[in-house]
Amino acid sequence: MADFIEPRTLKGFRDYPPELMIPRERLLEKAREVYRSYGYAPIDTPALEYAEILVGKMSEEAEITRQLYRFTDNGGRDVALRFDLTVPFARFAAQHIGKLGTPFKRYHMGPVWRGETPQAGRFREFWQCDFDTIGTESNASDIETALVIHDLMRALGFERFEVRINNRLILNGLLEELGLAEKGAALLRALDKLPKVGRDAVIAEMTEKAGATAGQAERVLALAGMTGTNAEILDRLGREFGGNARAAEGVKRLRELTDVARVAGVPEERLRLDLSIARGLDYYTGTIYETFLLDLPKIGSVCSGGRYDNLAALYTKQRLPGVGASLGLDRLLAAMEELKLLPKTATPAPVLVVQFSPERLGEYQRMARQLRAEGIGVEVYPEAKKVGQQFKYAEQRGFRVALTAGPDEFAQGVWKVKDLARREETTVPAAGVLNAVRKLLVG
Amino acid sequence: MADFIEPRTLKGFRDYPPELMIPRERLLEKAREVYRSYGYAPIDTPALEYAEILVGKMSEEAEITRQLYRFTDNGGRDVALRFDLTVPFARFAAQHIGKLGTPFKRYHMGPVWRGETPQAGRFREFWQCDFDTIGTESNASDIETALVIHDLMRALGFERFEVRINNRLILNGLLEELGLAEKGAALLRALDKLPKVGRDAVIAEMTEKAGATAGQAERVLALAGMTGTNAEILDRLGREFGGNARAAEGVKRLRELTDVARVAGVPEERLRLDLSIARGLDYYTGTIYETFLLDLPKIGSVCSGGRYDNLAALYTKQRLPGVGASLGLDRLLAAMEELKLLPKTATPAPVLVVQFSPERLGEYQRMARQLRAEGIGVEVYPEAKKVGQQFKYAEQRGFRVALTAGPDEFAQGVWKVKDLARREETTVPAAGVLNAVRKLLVG
Repeated sequence: MADFIEPRTLKGFRDYPPELMIPRERLLEKAREVYRSYGYAPIDTPALEYAEILVGKMSEEAEITRQLYRFTDNGGRDVALRFDLTVPFARFAAQHIGKLGTPFKRYHMGPVWRGETPQAGRFREFWQCDFDTIGTESNASDIETALVIHDLMRALGFERFEVRINNRLILNGLLEELGLAEKGAALLRALDKLPKVGRDAVIAEMTEKAGATAGQAERVLALAGMTGTNAEILDRLGREFGGNARAAEGVKRLRELTDVARVAGVPEERLRLDLSIARGLDYYTGTIYETFLLDLPKIGSVCSGGRYDNLAALYTKQRLPGVGASLGLDRLLAAMEELKLLPKTATPAPVLVVQFSPERLGEYQRMARQLRAEGIGVEVYPEAKKVGQQFKYAEQRGFRVALTAGPDEFAQGVWKVKDLARREETTVPAAGVLNAVRKLLVG
Repeated sequence: MADFIEPRTLKGFRDYPPELMIPRERLLEKAREVYRSYGYAPIDTPALEYAEILVGKMSEEAEITRQLYRFTDNGGRDVALRFDLTVPFARFAAQHIGKLGTPFKRYHMGPVWRGETPQAGRFREFWQCDFDTIGTESNASDIETALVIHDLMRALGFERFEVRINNRLILNGLLEELGLAEKGAALLRALDKLPKVGRDAVIAEMTEKAGATAGQAERVLALAGMTGTNAEILDRLGREFGGNARAAEGVKRLRELTDVARVAGVPEERLRLDLSIARGLDYYTGTIYETFLLDLPKIGSVCSGGRYDNLAALYTKQRLPGVGASLGLDRLLAAMEELKLLPKTATPAPVLVVQFSPERLGEYQRMARQLRAEGIGVEVYPEAKKVGQQFKYAEQRGFRVALTAGPDEFAQGVWKVKDLARREETTVPAAGVLNAVRKLLVG
């Protein structure tokens, strides 16, 4: 190998061969379809930004700052690769919102880079897939965000999932009543660990680090631990928090959300109020969302987000409240693989035309083009190898149907249509190939 | 603004707001659809690679090397952002081909980065969109490449275009006969300038820089200037170059290409033999392709490529011959805009549901979800603003249909359906909204 440059990828980076890329493309396509169907428009921003834009007010020692791919470009500029899509969106909004107008709904899909210590399932380059509505405080957008998440999960083929929904205003209202408003962030961080560390450890953190009394911690945990149907939870919240304006607003928004979703046709069991979800980020100020697969709860939330007060405060004085969520692409792909929702294939075309007689290549491509025009992907094998080798190739790559015609078939105007999984071959007239293939692909 | 970080993009980089991103997504989608329909599978590679992989055997002073975004990462590695998709594909193939097997057909779409001096229409970050078949020398793949380009242009909505095709072997055969085989690269570079600088300048360059005699330069130009139908050109080539094995192989391949394409159903006027195209790169060794829009020839080739002898010689001893082409995304988008093939819109959803009565949000979203389930994108306006304002928003964003229902309509079970371009509104029963909307969107 001394004469060659060793072909290798950087640590923490990976190639996507077809068997990984086909599912990723399919997932992104479904997401695009659902986002668009709700009127979210696509945007893109550069991979590279001025480092000051990305660092913002974070300290140079913050973890995310240390993980930046940051360098000085040929023109002497301090630049970095984006580490998420939210900061570029904030910069983008500050720069263009005057022309775009509000409300503005966008989705954005693309790679981001973080120089994290690589570990199982974590990469230094990974895709994010966000959607947001900015420029409005209307609860209609909070509600729509829940509907989008629901329809997205359905479009990806999931049936058994829950979008868990909470509203920060309720907990904030309680903290206000308890005189703990200032301690909100620390209490939320503690509460967020509930599923991982359990009740006692959370109380310990709340009393030791966040300065709450044991009684106050109990009240917070009682709120978070509230169970029941959506209607039961809303009733209890209404009774307990009717007196606090902030909490009452949160309860009203949640009630409206469940009402609208029901009328709009979303099954109640898929949108569940869950007062325990807190989402550690200080960033969210209203409705918050997490999404769990009932068959794989341990994988964590596969789509999370929430409402925030102001997107782009670092870059503009225009206040831009918004609400949105982000699809956990890699988690979802892992889950879909585990739940066998991903077809195992290395070809995007299900049909292979065997090259039996090279002088008939025109006819092979003509048949292929006829099927392609009907939306069926068809590869014509490029070489006139032995038929057995071509069938072997077809099976290895995951083709489902093989079409063969040699001199005898052309003389009779027929094709052989082979179901590769069942290894069954039938002979059909040329004009019947489309229907025969369709039947095999549907069945 | 002193308190804010100025929101700006780096010189030579740009944001894609919806009116730019919607067409780009549409174009990429059509390309994906066509590539897949022929069995090309998607792959992706990291944006960042070891610099030694990207630089290869290029000198540190080469233009492309100087344009690299290259830096030392936190781990002390010499890394760079990819400047095209071909070099990463070569590295990818060297690394994975044993597992992938041959023939291997892939497409790859993604951003690449070059620190060029920014000028009109040129950016430091731009997308490439390549497809290739590697691991076979079969002419079937050369032919298929032409069919893919043809079907791609049709899928993008173009009718008046020509895929111009040549084969390097013919010119190489002539040069061999003239004893100029060693001067091939320099002569090709001169010939490639023919459309720009004209005949005399090309002859001057050939005699002065490439060491040909005037007579030899005339022979080369006579070949390049051959005109006629594909059949006429093939006849003349057959007569003139039958004696040279290399050229004869080139002629045979071109003949087979036009024969197969005709039988496969591609109109002859769309695949034209053109002996003048040379594609300056030394890289190509066989069939070469350029694609011109008959209504915008000056924009240059919008899809170009060719056959090469060995993709990954820098990284592996396994010889990987191949053939492929690359879509000129930015040129195509500019052309489609000029030819009005791009709908002017900032929304991916054609239908807006006006929020007339906020307490009816559930019904608005229910109707919207019914249309979405039929593949029609529908946005529900998030705020209960004045109807006039909502209509204005709909027109500005490029919505085509607005649906309105207030207390009167709900009482009667009807909706108002408004054609926003014609400003015509009709009232239809709720059950008839889908059909009414469909009619307006088709018409």
